[in-house]
Amino acid sequence: MTALAPLAVAMGDPAGIGPEIIAKAWNRRREERLVPFFVVGDSRAVHTVWNGPVTRIDSPGDAAAVFEDALPVLTVEDAGDIVPGQPDLEGARCALHSLELATGMTREGAAAALVTGPVSKAQLYQIGFTHPGQTEFVAERVGVATSATVMMLAGPTLRVVPVTTHVPLRRVSELLNVPLLVTKARVTARALTRDFGIASPRLAFAGLNPHAGEQGAIGREEIDVMIPAIEILRGEGIDVAGPLAADTMFHGRARATYDAAICCYHDQALVPLKTLHFDEGVNITLGLPIVRTSPDHGTAFGIAGQDRAEPGAMIAAIRLAAEAAQRRATA
Amino acid sequence: MTALAPLAVAMGDPAGIGPEIIAKAWNRRREERLVPFFVVGDSRAVHTVWNGPVTRIDSPGDAAAVFEDALPVLTVEDAGDIVPGQPDLEGARCALHSLELATGMTREGAAAALVTGPVSKAQLYQIGFTHPGQTEFVAERVGVATSATVMMLAGPTLRVVPVTTHVPLRRVSELLNVPLLVTKARVTARALTRDFGIASPRLAFAGLNPHAGEQGAIGREEIDVMIPAIEILRGEGIDVAGPLAADTMFHGRARATYDAAICCYHDQALVPLKTLHFDEGVNITLGLPIVRTSPDHGTAFGIAGQDRAEPGAMIAAIRLAAEAAQRRATA
Repeated sequence: MTALAPLAVAMGDPAGIGPEIIAKAWNRRREERLVPFFVVGDSRAVHTVWNGPVTRIDSPGDAAAVFEDALPVLTVEDAGDIVPGQPDLEGARCALHSLELATGMTREGAAAALVTGPVSKAQLYQIGFTHPGQTEFVAERVGVATSATVMMLAGPTLRVVPVTTHVPLRRVSELLNVPLLVTKARVTARALTRDFGIASPRLAFAGLNPHAGEQGAIGREEIDVMIPAIEILRGEGIDVAGPLAADTMFHGRARATYDAAICCYHDQALVPLKTLHFDEGVNITLGLPIVRTSPDHGTAFGIAGQDRAEPGAMIAAIRLAAEAAQRRATA
Repeated sequence: MTALAPLAVAMGDPAGIGPEIIAKAWNRRREERLVPFFVVGDSRAVHTVWNGPVTRIDSPGDAAAVFEDALPVLTVEDAGDIVPGQPDLEGARCALHSLELATGMTREGAAAALVTGPVSKAQLYQIGFTHPGQTEFVAERVGVATSATVMMLAGPTLRVVPVTTHVPLRRVSELLNVPLLVTKARVTARALTRDFGIASPRLAFAGLNPHAGEQGAIGREEIDVMIPAIEILRGEGIDVAGPLAADTMFHGRARATYDAAICCYHDQALVPLKTLHFDEGVNITLGLPIVRTSPDHGTAFGIAGQDRAEPGAMIAAIRLAAEAAQRRATA
């Protein structure tokens, strides 16, 4: 193993569960065998919800020496008064600056990968944030068009890619087209090799319609859009199955036949992923020059500061980020 | 327990896996504590794939005495030459007459409930069958409009009702309307009490759009159609939650909060059900004067006659039919 730089973990909204789950992940660093990481945020947000050891650091290079005995925090700024569960604009500014700094450090190589804690988009929009979410912000900062990136949700037994995301279901059909499917699948296949170490990745396309359309009897998108895209991908040597009937492709034996499911819409991807792996899903942005992951859940303001947040997804996000960074470093 | 009449199990297509899974279910009658049932079909189809004891009976009244020692079969007619995996029109006629006879016996009370084996619709259509499927045929024979029935898929930890079924996904939005949702939910709530013994059933509506539309930001069907339907149902005293974000309502803790999920489209219902319970899903038709169930899988011609078919779903269908019939008999 090449010694990696530490991972940068952007704290997310200081009033959300981010500080708590990061601290709990650090608590389990030994049994989970986590590589060194440091928090970018406000150290007081951690102190507010956690009694463990925190050491403020001045640069990423200090993190490794600290990590064994304390949670290293690189403080960006004062987040104001922090009340768990009660987000405010000072907290949103802190979250945004944490994200910005952590992204920059990762881009420059001072951090080996970027892990982002949950933010409140509603709060961010109020302080002038104009990106749809953290992913688009990160993509811009590292110089990649969002359209060339792919959101993958990864759990222990299933990886899914939603080709369309936060759009009304009735609009999904018109948004699907051959170039979109081809681009998403290409980026996914490349990342499965580069970040997941799968030499010959197997993709499975989920059909849009019931029973994948039954040869056009229940919808034509499979014939008009999906099969042409699949043929292009196969022509490039990418192993693609489908379009498959979505309802029979996510049980255990079926999942064993592919490395990632390419799904037409948000819930087609997210329903099986969260049904199976609710507390351990990781969002990983594929197609970036840096490795970026995040736990697949929100700020959970409703339980913030109550010691009820589960760190499983954050731990999985840290671990996946470390694995991907290690693979890239040794490739 | 009131002594029930035996259950009638329509064999389905004799060249499919129906005969095999029925025989395997009978084999496990003791450990699975199955009530007596009899097959309606061609006894030779069973002999073709199974070496166990078969006794031909002339009427349902003979089934109980036979059941302990042999699989009782009420033969409707000669199905011609039976080759597992190779369906033909004689087999389709046998399947249709089996269904017709078993339905009639159940309607008249000679059988306590109807369990239907898998049929080949393609074959049935060729012999003049004009119903979309077995469900519509059964509904007509027992005098109920199909629109007043509900298809529920039931597994050990999840019950789902797809409000629309075999239609293109892009058409789902226009097919949803308040009366449809209200009718489906009413029938479901009533059946949860009558057939499943749940005194105060809890329904959960799955939103159509990602995140259940986020208050209209990602689609308006939740506001325009679903919430009005839910308000009507609540006004009738029915316990309804939602519209819920579909992706976070099917993991274990979420499933524990409701008795049935009312879903907008085929895959929204079938993906979580089959992801969790692929080999044990039961299709039960709600809203009929008789109890009717079937295993939630097809004829599987590709593995017929190879002793590879799993009887789990058939066993679950028989057990659920018996439980529902028992509840109705003692209500």
